[in-house]
Order: sequence, then structure tokens, then C-alpha cells
Amino acid sequence: MEQRFTYQQLFNFTERIFLAIGCTAHDATIAAESLLSADLRGVDSHGVARLSGYVRLWEAKRVNANPTLKIIHETPSTAVVDGDAGLGLVVAPFAMQVAIDKAKNVGTGWVSVQHSNHFGIAGKHAMMALPHDMIGIAMTNASALVAPTFAKQKMLGTNPIAVAIPAGKQAPFVADFATTTAANGKLEILQRKNKPVPQGWVQNKDGAASNNAHALKEGGALLPLGGNREGSSHKGYMLGSIVDIFSGVLSGANFGPWVPPFPAYIPMPENMPGQGIGHFFGAMRIDAFRTADAFKKDMDQWIAAFKNATPIDVNEPVIIPGEPEVIFENDRMINGIPLLPAVVTDLQQLGENLGVIF
Amino acid sequence: MEQRFTYQQLFNFTERIFLAIGCTAHDATIAAESLLSADLRGVDSHGVARLSGYVRLWEAKRVNANPTLKIIHETPSTAVVDGDAGLGLVVAPFAMQVAIDKAKNVGTGWVSVQHSNHFGIAGKHAMMALPHDMIGIAMTNASALVAPTFAKQKMLGTNPIAVAIPAGKQAPFVADFATTTAANGKLEILQRKNKPVPQGWVQNKDGAASNNAHALKEGGALLPLGGNREGSSHKGYMLGSIVDIFSGVLSGANFGPWVPPFPAYIPMPENMPGQGIGHFFGAMRIDAFRTADAFKKDMDQWIAAFKNATPIDVNEPVIIPGEPEVIFENDRMINGIPLLPAVVTDLQQLGENLGVIF
Repeated sequence: MEQRFTYQQLFNFTERIFLAIGCTAHDATIAAESLLSADLRGVDSHGVARLSGYVRLWEAKRVNANPTLKIIHETPSTAVVDGDAGLGLVVAPFAMQVAIDKAKNVGTGWVSVQHSNHFGIAGKHAMMALPHDMIGIAMTNASALVAPTFAKQKMLGTNPIAVAIPAGKQAPFVADFATTTAANGKLEILQRKNKPVPQGWVQNKDGAASNNAHALKEGGALLPLGGNREGSSHKGYMLGSIVDIFSGVLSGANFGPWVPPFPAYIPMPENMPGQGIGHFFGAMRIDAFRTADAFKKDMDQWIAAFKNATPIDVNEPVIIPGEPEVIFENDRMINGIPLLPAVVTDLQQLGENLGVIF
Repeated sequence: MEQRFTYQQLFNFTERIFLAIGCTAHDATIAAESLLSADLRGVDSHGVARLSGYVRLWEAKRVNANPTLKIIHETPSTAVVDGDAGLGLVVAPFAMQVAIDKAKNVGTGWVSVQHSNHFGIAGKHAMMALPHDMIGIAMTNASALVAPTFAKQKMLGTNPIAVAIPAGKQAPFVADFATTTAANGKLEILQRKNKPVPQGWVQNKDGAASNNAHALKEGGALLPLGGNREGSSHKGYMLGSIVDIFSGVLSGANFGPWVPPFPAYIPMPENMPGQGIGHFFGAMRIDAFRTADAFKKDMDQWIAAFKNATPIDVNEPVIIPGEPEVIFENDRMINGIPLLPAVVTDLQQLGENLGVIF
């Protein structure tokens, strides 16, 4: 049975956990906002369910709770940010703000980040651009779980891309997706239920297509978007690679098979060529191209046209990216955020360890 | 039987055809270079085989052979270019050069284009950035052939994305792909052979999955990358939408179902909200992030690692994006470009009509 908790309760608890590990008040608030945005938007795999995972990274000294974030290289439209091994949940909003500030000055801003850690959901950071009438872009590399087309070996993370685009009367367009067929979180759900996974999600340790939800844990790999060669998995592989290069190679972070893992019990890769995990952020001022009013009017027309596209089944209309997340957010702000019993137990335990009441 | 022609012969013919319809010498050269780059790189569907299609657009007064290209809005890092109904083959290199010039000044340049036409292969334009030690990005919208997830209706073009990234000793990384499972050109090959198409490429007019290569012509639609809901076709739909919005909505071009068709015999959409077809280009100076030398050294390591990733089949190693195209180009520069008899006949006829000897 799921139990529901108010946003405020989970937020306060999360904030106090981050304070307990040594974050400043400012950083604890930002980290809690980043993390909880996943729960609000219905991405349960990336929210408070991962809080203890972040704490274990801190315990393993892989996360610096009190980092000095700084720009180590810049031009009018670009910057490289050194995350100083901080929580990605804090580093990402800092770097996205740099991108926004540059866009204010010269039209666009592009920031590649080195020496960071996992940043929660990409969409949250991309959406920081929206109140400024800017398009926001966020991506990150992650530890290797994905085999490129033709490979057995895991070389790429699920490397998500988020793009947030303002509209007028309509809700903004917010795409946020892993460049794999299925995010690891969806696979874990089927693992827990012991159900087979659809074709194109995973391959086994020999590289053969598999329906086994445990294939990844048994030495197999997640598959790039497209699933197999006939389904054009090379396109998903290219997308994941672009995210990896923009986030990792452009910043001087680690890349490919050398990106540090999220679970603290997994050893760090050997011979790492860079610093920590890499992210990439962009902000484009709408009025650097045309007036925000004209753009938003057209976006409203775009959204209305796609919503009203003739559906295959009248009960399943076309979905605008970001629309389901708004429904989740509205519901969960009112009715609370549902947590599985295992997550509640984990949070209670975490609170006890750090002297924070859940 | 295919017949091979030298690059120079096809280039000279193409250039003279563009001169014959009224292009300036400068534009005819650039248009021929853009078009022929597809034949060289092995994308036979987008090269000289389409030359008569471009001429028919000119005959239908949908293409202006002598356009005045201009920047209609700009900031230090952005511009909107008005293509004046010119050939996309000419408009695209102009706009990409604007992006490159802006990147020289402020680190990056981003150009959205309105009132253009089809621009050939996206990769060619993105690759203009490479000699400048920049990352190049090119995308375009196109007339609607693709149904979003859950829709019967065709709302998006095949909307390709190209990203070209410099390396050191290795060949550059060049990704260039339609955001559908399969490009229309691949479908047409199976149509001509009367062969079934793999699952996830097309749906029929009722929106049901289909293996019929003629499904698109019979009122069906191409499918977004991912192929179906379980395969995460909503991600391909999101990608195609982002390309459409960056190219069409951000520039004031047409978007979604209103993008003008390539075949001149298809009527123009009604109530078009913008001007012509839209493109989007980006250029990012590597040394706006870190030294080009350090970046290229890491890119060489990235490429070597992926090439050497453990393959499923030792005879099929992992492919680096852009690698097959280099092999095509090397072969075709030496041994000529193969054309199907139907294409040769079409070019001969075109030459006769315009007084140009093939």
C-alpha cells in the first residue's frame, strides 16, 4: 500500500537531511527543491526514493557537501563550471543560472559542467529558463548501462535530454527523456513485479535481445532508443553519444565507460580521464530570435494543433510533452506524494541515522 | 545496372542546371556542392536524384532562384535569416556561416531560418564548423509525413538532426539522422523492391502497425523513432517536435502540418501560419569551453574506446557516427558515384529541357 505525504513534509525532511550532511542552508534548500521536483512531476524513480543514495555517496566521500562552485573558463556566451564534487542537485541550478545570465547579455548561454554528481531530473533545470521567456536545455551523462549498437559492452549512461519551451495560454512544452528505449526506473518496476520487458529495452550478456527484466543485472545492457538495428538503435546511440560528449568531453569531466556510478557500493572506474560527472545546459532568449509574443502565439497554435491531431483511439488523444507532469504536479500538491512502503522505511532509517525525524 | 559517374561530371552538370534556372554563379556552385555532398556520402536519396525535384519547385514558382538572403533580427550570439524563398541548398550554408561568424565573436552562434526550402543533407551544413574547430549543429523541418504517438494524422516531417564534432587524429564524429525510425528514402527502396518493412517504420491509415511498404502512400504515416508506445515512440515524437519548433516557430517559418511539401505537384497547405520551410543552425567554438587540443585528445580517446567496445559479433564492430560516410566518400571520389538507370534517364531529360548536356 502506498502512503501519501505532503510536499511540505517531504521537502522539510529532505532539506534537513542535506543540512545534516553539511550542506549550507542555501544549498540544502536548492538540493531539496531539485530532488522533490521529480516526485511532484511523477518521476518517482528520481525523487526522495534516491535520497539515501545521495547520502551514501557523501558517506563514501564521493560527494562534497560544501563545494565551491566556480566558472573556470568563459566567453560572452559560454562557460565551464567546476562543480567541486558537489551534489549535482546544487551544481546544476548554479550552472543553469550562468547560462540564463549569459543569454540575458548576448542572446544565448551554454554551460558545460565538470566534477559534478547526479543532478536529479533534467527537466527541472531546463524549466528554470521559462520564467525568463527563454528556451531551456539540460542534459547529463551518467554511468555506463547502455550498449551501443553492435556492442556487448556498456559504454553510455541513459544520458537524458530535456528541452523546455515557453508557450502563451498553453502550458509550456517540456520534453525530458532518457536516450534509451526505457529509463532504468521503468525496468526496475518490472523487475520488482517479476514481469517480462517489451522487446527493445534490454539485451543479455551475450548481446542477444531479451525480455528478461533482470538481464541488466545479469551482465546485459540497456538498449539505445530504437531498440535494435532494424528499429534504428544507432540513432539512440548517436543521441546518447552527443549528450556524453557535450557533457563530458566539452567540460573535461569523465565520459563513456569512465563516468562514476550512482550506487556508492560500485567501485569507481579505473584510469578516469576527467573530473566527476558532466552536464550541459543551454538558455536561448526567445526575443533574440523574434518577439516573445509572436513566438508564444505560434506555440499556442502548435500545441492546439497537436492536441487536436486525429487520434487512433478517441479516448487516447495526442499528449503534449510536459502535460502529464503538470497533471501529476497539480494532484500531488493537493493530495500528497505517494511513497512505496520500502521507500518510507528507507527514509525513516535514514532519518534515524542522521538524527532527523521523518 | 548502376552506372558510375565522376564527381566532377555530376558537379558540373548540376552547377549548369542551377545556372540555367537563373542562379548566380556563386549560388549555383554552392547549391551543387550542397546537393552532391549527399551522393558522395552515400545518401543517394538526397543527391542528384532530387535535382529535377528542385527544378520543378522552381517551375512551380515555389523556389526563388535569385534570392536576397538577409539577417532580419540578431543579437551577438543569434540571428534570424530570411531565405527569400531561395533554395535551401544555398540558404543553409549562408545561415551556417552566420552562426560560425557569431561563434568567432562570442563563443557560439545560433541561427533560425524562415522562408527557405529543402536544404539537402543536414550533415553537410553542420560539418562547415569543423575546419574552425567548432561543433556544428544543423536541423530542418519538412512536410508532414510522421504521426505523433497516438495519432493517425501526419503532423511532423522526418525532421533530421546533424551534429558534427571535431576530433584529433581520428575522423570527426558526424551524426546525421531523421527523427523517425526510418528515413523516407529507406522506405522507398523497399517500395521499389515490393518488400515488407520492419515493425515500427510505418502505420496504416487507421493508425495500426503495418509491414506494408506502401502504407505511407495509402494514407498511413511514418513512425517516430521508437516505432510504437512500448518502444518509446513518444521520444522520437518529442525530438521531431523540438526540431520543428527550433526551425519553424523560432524563425517565423511554417511548422507542424503547415510545412510546404517537396514534390511540386502536391498543393501547398492551407492557412499557412509562417514563411516557407524553417531550419536551425548552431556553431560552438571548442575553445570557448576548453583548449581545442585537450578536447581533441579526449575525443580521440572517446572514439577509440567506442570502436574497441566488445562487439556482439567480431565481424561487426561498433560504428562511429560519420565513419561509413567517409568510406563512401573515399570510394566515390576515386571510383565515381553510382546512379540507377531511372535517375540517369531523369537527368538526361532534365538536361534536354534546360539545354544542358548531361
